[in-house]
Amino acid sequence: MTVKADTRLTRLPERGSQDFKLACDILDEARICHVGFTLDEQPYVVPMSLGRDGDQVLLHGSVVSRLMKNLASGLPCCVTVTHLDGLVLARSAFNSSMNYRSLMVFGSARLISDEAEKKRGFDILVEHLLPGRLSDLRESTRKELNATTLLALPLKTFSIKTSDGPPDDAKKDLDTPIWAGVIPLELKAGEPEPAPDMVADIPLPAYLKQ
Amino acid sequence: MTVKADTRLTRLPERGSQDFKLACDILDEARICHVGFTLDEQPYVVPMSLGRDGDQVLLHGSVVSRLMKNLASGLPCCVTVTHLDGLVLARSAFNSSMNYRSLMVFGSARLISDEAEKKRGFDILVEHLLPGRLSDLRESTRKELNATTLLALPLKTFSIKTSDGPPDDAKKDLDTPIWAGVIPLELKAGEPEPAPDMVADIPLPAYLKQ
Repeated sequence: MTVKADTRLTRLPERGSQDFKLACDILDEARICHVGFTLDEQPYVVPMSLGRDGDQVLLHGSVVSRLMKNLASGLPCCVTVTHLDGLVLARSAFNSSMNYRSLMVFGSARLISDEAEKKRGFDILVEHLLPGRLSDLRESTRKELNATTLLALPLKTFSIKTSDGPPDDAKKDLDTPIWAGVIPLELKAGEPEPAPDMVADIPLPAYLKQ
Repeated sequence: MTVKADTRLTRLPERGSQDFKLACDILDEARICHVGFTLDEQPYVVPMSLGRDGDQVLLHGSVVSRLMKNLASGLPCCVTVTHLDGLVLARSAFNSSMNYRSLMVFGSARLISDEAEKKRGFDILVEHLLPGRLSDLRESTRKELNATTLLALPLKTFSIKTSDGPPDDAKKDLDTPIWAGVIPLELKAGEPEPAPDMVADIPLPAYLKQ
């Protein structure tokens, strides 16, 4: 059975906790998001890394970045995360599609300037990139913290679209003698590549062994 | 050596053929793009499938979609494709990053209404989704063609950003006895899942065997 859940391109803030949980799951599984905004009537869509602190989406970038300055000043934005889960091969081009889970978060970001909150935010970003990594790293210096802008976008006004399941062909196409089905897709990690300048004899940490 | 190629967030149209070729490669490898536009001062970023016809990025959607209608009417947009190639684990949080290849295409899309051009465009979209698939499918009906909007965005004003290579740590961090390096990431296909309503005894086509 094909499940098409579509909460549509509206910005209605009425959301059940079910939706909130799914939104968190989509964010937590993602390594990148796409941040959209408009400057001088030109839309931009920029890939960025992300993190999540409860009901806040965390973004960061260089303090000298024009993008970060604009977002920090409250420019309306849309942060979208998409997981492409599979190619759906139907018997017709028309019914061929993709399985995916996608989240759009709408709003304006808030600049995090409190030092303790900022440190905590960066810790979350590091753990989001790779769970387990944080305890291996030295603390960030004040200079490093000052060189980086941290933003929080509320996970409050959002839209989820998902598509799942096998192809949904027209009845008249079902007898067509061609292969139909789903090719699952997943972002997979390959063999870790040690840095050439690494101090010798450092074993691969446990969090990299799966 | 870390290679940071950054053509920046400008919209300068002067591009060498080298850049054009790289832009095509980034598009051709992608199954989805993120389309950004603004309506009533609210930015949206929507995932879509894509294709490429020479120097045109092809997008499609339902004729009843508000998004497609707006794009077809010439709404300025930005189409971004990002390949996340790896997690870059440095000795510090500050220098940890990602390897990626990202393309932003700026402009306004053109509605393709000529029937022959539209048919050809859909063929390209099918082959983009899965090379080899097209010859297996019946021709689309006029009704199906009429139910779908096809758009072309010129690959003319664009920006490429890429990051590649091992972590680029501060000298003082190089002696830190922690593992550093790159975790390569790749979108991989899993085992094909036959549709439950498939006519029995249809072998997996050759184009699905890799």
